[in-house]
Amino acid sequence: MARRLEVIGIEGLPEIREGDDLVTLFMNALDEMGMEIEDGDAIVFTSKIISKSEGRVVSLSVLQVSEEAMRIARATGKDPRIVQLILDETRELVRVARNMIIVETRHGFVCANAGVDESNVEEDKAVLLPEDPQASAAQLRREIEERSGKKVAVLVSDSFGRAFRDGVTGICIGVSGLPALLDRRGELDRFGKVARITKEAVADEVCAAANLVMGEFREGIPIVIVRGMHGLGLEGKGESESESESGIKEVLFSKEEDLFR
Amino acid sequence: MARRLEVIGIEGLPEIREGDDLVTLFMNALDEMGMEIEDGDAIVFTSKIISKSEGRVVSLSVLQVSEEAMRIARATGKDPRIVQLILDETRELVRVARNMIIVETRHGFVCANAGVDESNVEEDKAVLLPEDPQASAAQLRREIEERSGKKVAVLVSDSFGRAFRDGVTGICIGVSGLPALLDRRGELDRFGKVARITKEAVADEVCAAANLVMGEFREGIPIVIVRGMHGLGLEGKGESESESESGIKEVLFSKEEDLFR
Repeated sequence: MARRLEVIGIEGLPEIREGDDLVTLFMNALDEMGMEIEDGDAIVFTSKIISKSEGRVVSLSVLQVSEEAMRIARATGKDPRIVQLILDETRELVRVARNMIIVETRHGFVCANAGVDESNVEEDKAVLLPEDPQASAAQLRREIEERSGKKVAVLVSDSFGRAFRDGVTGICIGVSGLPALLDRRGELDRFGKVARITKEAVADEVCAAANLVMGEFREGIPIVIVRGMHGLGLEGKGESESESESGIKEVLFSKEEDLFR
Repeated sequence: MARRLEVIGIEGLPEIREGDDLVTLFMNALDEMGMEIEDGDAIVFTSKIISKSEGRVVSLSVLQVSEEAMRIARATGKDPRIVQLILDETRELVRVARNMIIVETRHGFVCANAGVDESNVEEDKAVLLPEDPQASAAQLRREIEERSGKKVAVLVSDSFGRAFRDGVTGICIGVSGLPALLDRRGELDRFGKVARITKEAVADEVCAAANLVMGEFREGIPIVIVRGMHGLGLEGKGESESESESGIKEVLFSKEEDLFR
């Protein structure tokens, strides 16, 4: 079990554009900081730079807006073009209210606005979530491990609102090399009793920790290393080949399991 | 803005009993580790040791079980005595299902089982949430600041499940010296646009980071320092007198604001 972690913001990364090689940029920035990757590093990439490198940036001015998007735009007070982007990314609407559209995305994430985001991008553009953030996490991990020779985890983070509590927190939308859930069922507590139901969402906790350093706006720290994750599953089932990893899907309830839909 | 944080588990604390002086035990343990408190430390106490120091441990064998508790016990498959404890801590039932009771507690937290917990306590006993975790955070902060001469934040953490995602994460149930929500509305993003809605739940993120080190079971790390929180509000409104702090109430939606009740 880790007794001490470091949460290290990677500075000096440029504004990311379509086609950029994130691993090279990351490793150059590390170099500039005089740092090296270590075994057990959990490397958190904000979804926004992955989206930008994938070209998942949309110009609002060229969008065709459907009747459904117009109707929801009127009901919510949102820009109809943004609503159209949200619908295009949506598997199912979960709640629609004034200035608020909560959906299940194509990927299975329940979040506001399907992750469509107008911040930290040029005027009249919006950024979509990565095409397949789980695959991106696996791919980034493979490249970083090949180039560094170290055993690492890669997480893709976003910041989502929550039910029951105001404010957003960093959460995970793709993870490789670390289990999304650390299953402690069957472990004994300090009094020798068997723990009954606890699964700890470690991938989300790592992304929450990283978010404290990333900040939301001008700080612009899009990659954070959480160092020292020994015993938190990095040596466990996360080590299986990424092809067979369930990754972030492990934390997603099916609609039937979900008490709040 | 913090660029680097350390998350430091405090080792060597004894099993906590009613009446124990947590600040003295914490400062002795720090001493043993050769450490000192620093300005800007966010000190996270797991709710369980606060509850234990307050004597919020109940013997199940002496409980009187009401008819309502019996009925809910049958519906959920839970121990009727545990259900009684949950009801005693509950302002309102939110969802009741097989093996699952989600409530709003007296304090206003929406969580499973009203925080009543049978792990890490003797057989046939259960631990309740602290009487007033917000007041506990303020009191602990006052004492630690007086004795150390440093400016710190204190957070009381628990681990709650979430809607839409499986697994528990560390969350905050009391905070002093740090805003629960860092309000970034009105800040400019890197492209000079005004951020519209983002409030970051930093207190919850700090508790999530701490939870990675606390672990859930035998590890037994009940206090964690998150060091280096400069610019995250520790110098901001958190510095107001704790008497006027809104503390963790800031993150709690009223029932009317809450889309998922």
